[in-house]
Amino acid sequence: MRLLIKDITVIPMTGPEEIIKNGAIAVEDGRIVYVGPAEEAPSDFRPNRVLRGSNFVALPGLVNAHTHAAMTLFRGYADDLPLKRWLEEAIWPLEAKLKGEDVYWGTLLACAEMLLGGTTTFADMYFFMDEVAEAVDKSGIRASLARGLIGILPGADKALKESEEFVRRWHGKANGRITCMLGPHAPYTCPPAYLEEVVRLAEELQVGIHIHVSETAHEVEEIRRQYGCSPVEMLEKAGVFRVPVLAAHGVHLSPRDMEILAQYKAAVVHNPESNMKLASGIAPVTELLAAGVTVALGTDGAASNNNLDMWEEMRAAALLAKVSRNDPEALPAYQALEMATLGGAKALGLADQIGTLEVGKRADIVLVDLARAHLQPPHDPISHLVYAARASDVDTVIVDGRIVVEGGRLITLDLGEIMARSCSAARRLVGKPLHRSLL
Amino acid sequence: MRLLIKDITVIPMTGPEEIIKNGAIAVEDGRIVYVGPAEEAPSDFRPNRVLRGSNFVALPGLVNAHTHAAMTLFRGYADDLPLKRWLEEAIWPLEAKLKGEDVYWGTLLACAEMLLGGTTTFADMYFFMDEVAEAVDKSGIRASLARGLIGILPGADKALKESEEFVRRWHGKANGRITCMLGPHAPYTCPPAYLEEVVRLAEELQVGIHIHVSETAHEVEEIRRQYGCSPVEMLEKAGVFRVPVLAAHGVHLSPRDMEILAQYKAAVVHNPESNMKLASGIAPVTELLAAGVTVALGTDGAASNNNLDMWEEMRAAALLAKVSRNDPEALPAYQALEMATLGGAKALGLADQIGTLEVGKRADIVLVDLARAHLQPPHDPISHLVYAARASDVDTVIVDGRIVVEGGRLITLDLGEIMARSCSAARRLVGKPLHRSLL
Repeated sequence: MRLLIKDITVIPMTGPEEIIKNGAIAVEDGRIVYVGPAEEAPSDFRPNRVLRGSNFVALPGLVNAHTHAAMTLFRGYADDLPLKRWLEEAIWPLEAKLKGEDVYWGTLLACAEMLLGGTTTFADMYFFMDEVAEAVDKSGIRASLARGLIGILPGADKALKESEEFVRRWHGKANGRITCMLGPHAPYTCPPAYLEEVVRLAEELQVGIHIHVSETAHEVEEIRRQYGCSPVEMLEKAGVFRVPVLAAHGVHLSPRDMEILAQYKAAVVHNPESNMKLASGIAPVTELLAAGVTVALGTDGAASNNNLDMWEEMRAAALLAKVSRNDPEALPAYQALEMATLGGAKALGLADQIGTLEVGKRADIVLVDLARAHLQPPHDPISHLVYAARASDVDTVIVDGRIVVEGGRLITLDLGEIMARSCSAARRLVGKPLHRSLL
Repeated sequence: MRLLIKDITVIPMTGPEEIIKNGAIAVEDGRIVYVGPAEEAPSDFRPNRVLRGSNFVALPGLVNAHTHAAMTLFRGYADDLPLKRWLEEAIWPLEAKLKGEDVYWGTLLACAEMLLGGTTTFADMYFFMDEVAEAVDKSGIRASLARGLIGILPGADKALKESEEFVRRWHGKANGRITCMLGPHAPYTCPPAYLEEVVRLAEELQVGIHIHVSETAHEVEEIRRQYGCSPVEMLEKAGVFRVPVLAAHGVHLSPRDMEILAQYKAAVVHNPESNMKLASGIAPVTELLAAGVTVALGTDGAASNNNLDMWEEMRAAALLAKVSRNDPEALPAYQALEMATLGGAKALGLADQIGTLEVGKRADIVLVDLARAHLQPPHDPISHLVYAARASDVDTVIVDGRIVVEGGRLITLDLGEIMARSCSAARRLVGKPLHRSLL
């Protein structure tokens, strides 16, 4: 398959000033073989397929670096509640009833939503991960998958064993679209001894660790009470940073925590909308970037967001940084877009493959249609992508060289079936629907 | 014209628990004549036109209660700058070059964007207001229009005179879709003596006042230095609250300010995204509502937002209230939706005509299509509208009984022409485009 994209503006995300008007991108066997001005494109490239659009801007596929995809099933089921009640009265009772098939359909619904909105890669932590991997494989999306591990529950060792089997079964599969991590849930659910076991296994399997860190002030207090140090320091003592770490949230971090994260090249995934909705707090994104920490963006699960829309997440990150620091220059548009692309690629250990549009990388490409009322006049496409665009402005999505969305429609999946099956699953899980429910 | 909308779910915004499944709405001569269960609809109603959609929810048209519509021309022209540089180096030099024709096309672009996103009414403060009114008339949208008045500039009296002529020419026109207010810009640009003149004129014309109040901490300090009181107290002394007041922003308010606003039934328009982007601060929405103040929502101008999307504004308001108060129960979904509908109607003095779906009100109705990946499963349509929906989920928009958007497309305006003409205007205003500009 040889694909040529032409008559477009290219935002390769290789630098804030780099933008190619009248650009072209050539793709062969899923890999980018040319990015640059259209007139310099190799004349001997014979495409099977040509895409074009003078109102389109091409950018790297977005990376949703922290989610729990199948929680789409619980979208809107419980909102505006304190975290404890939300978990104990709403989410956990439903999760206890989940079956593998539910997770399969919930994950496919998430993949459909993400692909339609230009997200080409996501990092997931959940359970029934074989079903998650099957949904990823089927949908054509790219993902880094981790089975959630709760060290304080009975069966923690069995879960670790299953995690190992899962990694051995799926890591590198689907033409490399699926990679795996280990997923110890959080410092407050995984004691040091368990974390040490997880790290040993990660080293053996040569994979990274995806973990929630310092999401709430309560968690930080709890860890300090128990271990006399911060969650990040506790992870350091347990040796977790010997392997690559994707730390979700990082809302409540000390300067020392940030030094540690920078020193070990750990990545923090900022989830601004979920942190706002659950009133967890505001992550110190500007300080993390200044400390040299890689920062990525994520939506968290749809039950606490309530969508998987990375455009909103970029905008929320940029706006929240400004108002919380009382500085309108904080987190400018390019930096927000970089967090959602290259930052995510780095956090998932995939920066050699995705995150920018460069020769040699895998072809994960999004074409956004600027010919919309809310994106006119086109003073600055990067500003528009961050401050004005929506998921629905995505026209075409290419993952690993394969076109999966075209003209704003999924061409690899049957969306009607996915919606029907995920609604059936939700109906079964909920039992009696809520008063206002349309289920 | 008799229009029947059936096989829909109706969210009339008459109470948090009120939702009509299998509902119907009948419209005659621009007015709602029935809202309720489909099976109880009057059997003798003979529609000329029937709309239906079992995945559609009907809600009142959204009210964007504070904007500067023609500033769409400057969308993305200058971002991530301190307020002073943004105004002095970017916005004011362009505004100085504006002609009436530019404002006409910029306003039409704004109307197109707002209608496509389900906003059926807006409150505007700008200049070249005849051209604004013509754009409103042509587009079919509803608007409350105020010519901006700067009391400290030469020509302030002439501007007031023009304002009077504008009100006499347009108030109540376009079948009542256009109403007018007087628009003294702000306490720091309109001294008390000038405000007193404005109030006298407003009383004579029987219109309200649209004014920016306490947007930045700097403004509050400045007023206190000059007058020894807060901006709200200064307005009270000048007699401004003798007429209905729409106070935009209200970011920095004391408890006493809130008491005054409540006492005089003034409305505050919360503009969360603009306040975040310019780092102005976070308005005390929960406290205002608790004090009994009417709170509406607005986008502010597209140059500081950068779109006119009320769905984002609702979501930003709800999420920001939670994180800023450290309370996940703050500003629940229904309250955010109420601010964007009935709250806006009250702020514009139009609550007897719009803001809810009730018999006797004008037919400003939005149909949102829930059959989208990111709105499944339909656990709670009100949660979905506030926490997950997008402007692009709007399928049909009706203003004053007339269908203006159908199937997500404008049917009253030529969007291609509007985009071309507003781009030409922007090109002329800017002169040499920015490095990244696609103009």
